[in-house]
Amino acid sequence: MSDAVFHPDVDELPLSKVLAALADPARLAMVRAVAGTDGLSCTLLDRTAGLELSKSTLSHHQRILREAGITRTRIEGSRRVLTLRREELDARFPGLVAAVLASPTEPTRAAAKAAAAR
Amino acid sequence: MSDAVFHPDVDELPLSKVLAALADPARLAMVRAVAGTDGLSCTLLDRTAGLELSKSTLSHHQRILREAGITRTRIEGSRRVLTLRREELDARFPGLVAAVLASPTEPTRAAAKAAAAR
Repeated sequence: MSDAVFHPDVDELPLSKVLAALADPARLAMVRAVAGTDGLSCTLLDRTAGLELSKSTLSHHQRILREAGITRTRIEGSRRVLTLRREELDARFPGLVAAVLASPTEPTRAAAKAAAAR
Repeated sequence: MSDAVFHPDVDELPLSKVLAALADPARLAMVRAVAGTDGLSCTLLDRTAGLELSKSTLSHHQRILREAGITRTRIEGSRRVLTLRREELDARFPGLVAAVLASPTEPTRAAAKAAAAR
């Protein structure tokens, strides 16, 4: 991935695109994990969110969130570090991120697998 | 459509399902149109939301919203009347509906077509 990662202008984002990006248990878990931090690497994010995703799946989710203006990806050496674009999102969609973060969590695939193995 | 239309228990709905149902410009317009009313028929809803959708497309969107616990469909003679399940949604996902309703509207296909024809 090049240093010039595309980030859309949140002021021009349609709500439907943001909602579509959020409409996935793994991506919701990533947003929750990254919220309130000053950045999490993809690897650390996977662990914090309890996702146990492959690198390619994680990369896919990272791209969807980034292209929908939800997270910002910065390159630090070989790591991709994600932050939540909280202020910009709050300005365009007041209350949306807060509502998402306040909502009940739902089991991700890894959590469901662990529960089944118990 | 039978009188026994399926409505899920909002208390058991995962957020991702609700977000997926909302992640569409036409369905967002339907939710905005029906909010604050005590019910809108599909025909009236189409007109209020400025959608100009076919009956089958409207019926499809109605089903997605209903199965995601966002709207309730009641049968009145030959009409299907939609209401927003606002209180139940507010209880499970505090602030979510308010955030969606407060967000900037986005052009639906009919609006985009009208703008292009000008």
